[in-house]
Amino acid sequence: MQPSDAPLRPVTFHPDIPAIGFIAQTKLPSACTIEYASDVNRLAQAIRTLDIRGAPALGVAGAYGVALAALTSTSTEMNAFIADVTHAAELLISTRPTAVNLSYGINRVLTRVNHERNSSAATAVAISEAEAVADEDTSTCHAIGEHGLKILPRKCRILTHCNAGALACREWGTALGVIRSAVQAGYEVQVYACETRPLLQGARLTAWELSRDGIDVTVITDSMAASLMRKGMIDLVIVGADRITCDAVFNKIGTYMHAVCAKAHNLPFYVAAPLSTFDEEAEEADIIVEQRAREEVACFGGTKTIPDTVKVYNPAFDATPLSLVTGIITEYGILRLPEELTRIGQIRKEQQEQNQ
Amino acid sequence: MQPSDAPLRPVTFHPDIPAIGFIAQTKLPSACTIEYASDVNRLAQAIRTLDIRGAPALGVAGAYGVALAALTSTSTEMNAFIADVTHAAELLISTRPTAVNLSYGINRVLTRVNHERNSSAATAVAISEAEAVADEDTSTCHAIGEHGLKILPRKCRILTHCNAGALACREWGTALGVIRSAVQAGYEVQVYACETRPLLQGARLTAWELSRDGIDVTVITDSMAASLMRKGMIDLVIVGADRITCDAVFNKIGTYMHAVCAKAHNLPFYVAAPLSTFDEEAEEADIIVEQRAREEVACFGGTKTIPDTVKVYNPAFDATPLSLVTGIITEYGILRLPEELTRIGQIRKEQQEQNQ
Repeated sequence: MQPSDAPLRPVTFHPDIPAIGFIAQTKLPSACTIEYASDVNRLAQAIRTLDIRGAPALGVAGAYGVALAALTSTSTEMNAFIADVTHAAELLISTRPTAVNLSYGINRVLTRVNHERNSSAATAVAISEAEAVADEDTSTCHAIGEHGLKILPRKCRILTHCNAGALACREWGTALGVIRSAVQAGYEVQVYACETRPLLQGARLTAWELSRDGIDVTVITDSMAASLMRKGMIDLVIVGADRITCDAVFNKIGTYMHAVCAKAHNLPFYVAAPLSTFDEEAEEADIIVEQRAREEVACFGGTKTIPDTVKVYNPAFDATPLSLVTGIITEYGILRLPEELTRIGQIRKEQQEQNQ
Repeated sequence: MQPSDAPLRPVTFHPDIPAIGFIAQTKLPSACTIEYASDVNRLAQAIRTLDIRGAPALGVAGAYGVALAALTSTSTEMNAFIADVTHAAELLISTRPTAVNLSYGINRVLTRVNHERNSSAATAVAISEAEAVADEDTSTCHAIGEHGLKILPRKCRILTHCNAGALACREWGTALGVIRSAVQAGYEVQVYACETRPLLQGARLTAWELSRDGIDVTVITDSMAASLMRKGMIDLVIVGADRITCDAVFNKIGTYMHAVCAKAHNLPFYVAAPLSTFDEEAEEADIIVEQRAREEVACFGGTKTIPDTVKVYNPAFDATPLSLVTGIITEYGILRLPEELTRIGQIRKEQQEQNQ
């Protein structure tokens, strides 16, 4: 595969069609198929089937979805128009009710729509606000990437888990954004991507997107990481995050194992995540980790791998205590935790003042 | 599935047919099919395709194979008979040239055959020696199981990796032998079986054989183990071993990760292995770990999971330094290493004196 110069964008908006384009991620890596949702029902289906996934990408897709609903509404009378758009927003939120970023993207556009007086002004504002949500995610990821350069040796071998990449964002990525920024700045980076059982996001998505961009990547099973650390084949670990409480990082199951093993081998363990991932008022104990379907572990490609009589335990995430985290690479710089958690409050305050 | 009272034996010998019966393990857990090899070519094929696998089971299969060759030889003249049997032995050894137990079982029977004066006496001795090899493995596994009781709480949750079970031995198993002995003795045991990527021996074989015997078993992905330890869901780890040098335990990839995580959570980490697994003159650095086929990681059930352009690293085993091992459960008792490695020399000496 030839490296591509165009940024990899998993979700794109085409108001002229109108439609939302998306890479059908469930077909990767066998095929990179761009599909188009010309109504919100089709978009909702793509989110449900995980063709569109990744917290920041869901925020962008949700924002675009509300704009698409505005564009395709046949109601010109404002109350009916608002009802159409609100109905679409509710449908989209229901596809992944616990995805904070999805509802964030949707509500941001919906709020702006509600402030307008007529449907054409509301539609115009919906489109521009949706693009603003997407552009902010792009800036955030690039800022994370730039800050990440500070913690990387000029030549390094990085272990990552799951897919905190362009495919999970508007573009660039968080953990993989740091890697992209480093490669762009001339760093010599070698990536070990853990395949990430059960759904293999590391093998299917991370390996695909890094190799698309010509970045040196090797896939290993999750169970090999510790052994590579012992052999001196890894310099540091960078992963993404689903949610960061005042005491722990919630991320794809397996992340905690890497943190424990990194500590045992005196290797830095970094998390790359935007400020929107922080839920610093909450504690680890407050978070309920979803148990996912048995079939994810018990079947593969239609083949049953575990007898029906045997139980399966399949938590989606694990929690890594902050004591195992060297630092969190955010768009505002690197936070060394837990000491610097207080800085988050200050940053949020400054953000709010800026937005007013 | 109803628990079965008959011991699970993956390889059986039927001199009356004559044939070697075996469970086609590659078809587990979808089907438990018994197949019969009525000649050594068919047996060699079953070993090559991993329908018969596991170090002790290979020793038993090799011994049976030489006896089958004796039984099916059409030569009555002794030189021609010896040539037939030796040819069969060489063919069997070539199927897995690095499997120490396979050549051990084969050579033990072959040596006895060579000491006889005529083919019928040699055939009789081949059959009895092959059964002796099998019976010794049975005794060894049951002795490991009995010794294992000393380190188990009456109620415990055990994590295991890969398949060190009946399917890898003549019956009972090593790591799973300890679990069977405990259940038989009335211990309340709950097992967490790591699926064991890439070949899923934990999911396909360990889960199947424990559930066949009515033992409480739950399958997890390898990456979940550390998280379960942190949640207090695991009391100790027991795994098997492929080879034990004076400084490390070589076992299925992923074993080292469990040892590191057990240490981090102050959990005991035991290895269950017969004395034949020890290679105490060798050091970790002497052992070359085989790299296995890319497809094991890159494909699943015919589905490609990793782009062709992406590298894969697939070592069969990893090495766990003895400093992380709480003890090794052998048929002669529990060795606390490395201090007690010297006892192995003494045990070997006593064994040799017994055999003389």
